[in-house]
Amino acid sequence: MRGLISTAHINPSYKPMPTMTTTVIHKLVVIGVGLIGGSFALALREAGRVQHITGIGRSRENMRRALALGEIDEIADNIESALKDAELVFLAVPVGQTGEIMAQISAYLAPSTIVTDAGSTKQEVVAAARSHLAPHLKNFVPGHPVAGAERSGAGAANADLFRGKNVVLTPLEETSREATQKVTELWEACGARISRMSANRHDEILAAVSHLPHVLAFALMNHVVSAGADGSNDAHDNDLLRFAGSGFRDSTRIAGSSPEMWRDICLGNRKALLNQIDAYQKELTVMREMLSDGDGDALERLFARARNAREHWLKSLPG
Amino acid sequence: MRGLISTAHINPSYKPMPTMTTTVIHKLVVIGVGLIGGSFALALREAGRVQHITGIGRSRENMRRALALGEIDEIADNIESALKDAELVFLAVPVGQTGEIMAQISAYLAPSTIVTDAGSTKQEVVAAARSHLAPHLKNFVPGHPVAGAERSGAGAANADLFRGKNVVLTPLEETSREATQKVTELWEACGARISRMSANRHDEILAAVSHLPHVLAFALMNHVVSAGADGSNDAHDNDLLRFAGSGFRDSTRIAGSSPEMWRDICLGNRKALLNQIDAYQKELTVMREMLSDGDGDALERLFARARNAREHWLKSLPG
Repeated sequence: MRGLISTAHINPSYKPMPTMTTTVIHKLVVIGVGLIGGSFALALREAGRVQHITGIGRSRENMRRALALGEIDEIADNIESALKDAELVFLAVPVGQTGEIMAQISAYLAPSTIVTDAGSTKQEVVAAARSHLAPHLKNFVPGHPVAGAERSGAGAANADLFRGKNVVLTPLEETSREATQKVTELWEACGARISRMSANRHDEILAAVSHLPHVLAFALMNHVVSAGADGSNDAHDNDLLRFAGSGFRDSTRIAGSSPEMWRDICLGNRKALLNQIDAYQKELTVMREMLSDGDGDALERLFARARNAREHWLKSLPG
Repeated sequence: MRGLISTAHINPSYKPMPTMTTTVIHKLVVIGVGLIGGSFALALREAGRVQHITGIGRSRENMRRALALGEIDEIADNIESALKDAELVFLAVPVGQTGEIMAQISAYLAPSTIVTDAGSTKQEVVAAARSHLAPHLKNFVPGHPVAGAERSGAGAANADLFRGKNVVLTPLEETSREATQKVTELWEACGARISRMSANRHDEILAAVSHLPHVLAFALMNHVVSAGADGSNDAHDNDLLRFAGSGFRDSTRIAGSSPEMWRDICLGNRKALLNQIDAYQKELTVMREMLSDGDGDALERLFARARNAREHWLKSLPG
């Protein structure tokens, strides 16, 4: 399960280009210097792959922290000057804001400037690029580092965030092989395992292993709150939660995620997520029927299948 | 959220009896010296609440380990001699075996011997007691220490397992106040927070906060395996699992639980669990409809409600 092997697994036709030179970015512009943007900057700097990093962000305080932490070399005064001579632009903003940002930067992008992003859903980002970056698609490389974390903001960034993590790139037909190769090299320099696939396939996969589990966790938390003896929203007065243990805590951990971010992700990947919810409901209904029939053997087989698959999966993880 | 306060919350009529003397058990018999049985023995010994501990179990090897680890003082040769002069019998076997064990011990129980258990479902245990311990119900105190753990067996036992954990007692109408009080004192000596409620209420609560989450996790794991590109049961060949991260890992942690044990728990609490599954599916369907309607505001409100309730709950946990 190393990067290119797993890539081959996804897309047998893909062969990495032999890398003659080491890519060093002279000017990197990070738009949104939070956990992801800041960590990308720190990792590239540590790998000696970048000379100058300009940061753009909404929160002045967060940008000052990013500067103090060495994640960026300067805070941009305005987009035009920030993008001047930029070799790579990294969009690390909530996926819901991607289109708006693209609209703001498109006029100032030099033809040679490569643009990549870190959005959690890709078909939506590709659609936004088609509407706002049309002349620039050959240098647009959609990407998604699959590296969540509870914490956010420049203060949470660290150079090792992407080490051993999956980064999925979903190049468009228009995207040049060179642009994709350069972004691939930079993510590899961050220690990530790179895969390439269609935006559609990415969204299907993430709907199953990330978006669905989040919805299930939000629903479980709300269900238990509603089922609480006094129907109170206050966990202090909830008989059920008083008896919830570590299993429940882990099952609902991702229900602590940002409601705003997950609203955008769910809406951004609505079709694939609806399919996943429907398929999951079917799976759950099968178990429900076995239970209703008192078919202990069938239940035990399904439980054992789940446990075995999980053990296989855990063994297959790197490190 | 201290034991008796929370008990009062569950059963306002309950008042603890003033304890004049400290209960010391002269002979404790532990049937099933695994994680729960062994930890109960170690905790009572550490608290100076027991003089002699006899162990009964199927696996000779496990019993020798329990003896070597000081969890028991002797391995019983047979049930009759083991139960002779026993002051307390602690049943810590899988809930599916409880009835059978009760049938085996009933003939050898002295009228004064108190029997308690650690079964994860209580209505089933009460029913088993009514069929097999009929003459002995005044000294039978059904109990459930809500303290799961990945590991099992005598080797996993430790004296602090129950510290700060909930222990639910579900006395029968026939159960004497003295027997319930004695078992309460002993669990308090283990550092547990004691609650009393009906077996029915216990099963409803655990169905919501423990049994349902396990079923959901088993179903999620199986769903993702089935949805894997090649439909393979082998996680190594599963495109989806290759992109699963820490959120998925935590969401499915309890899918690593014992299939046999969870088959028994689900069957033992079938009615309440079916109700929970149905209510959960309704909750999930509400979210599905909001997503299908593209109602981002409603989704965000539900997500925020879940996150806030979880934060309240985490704050309310002891220590």
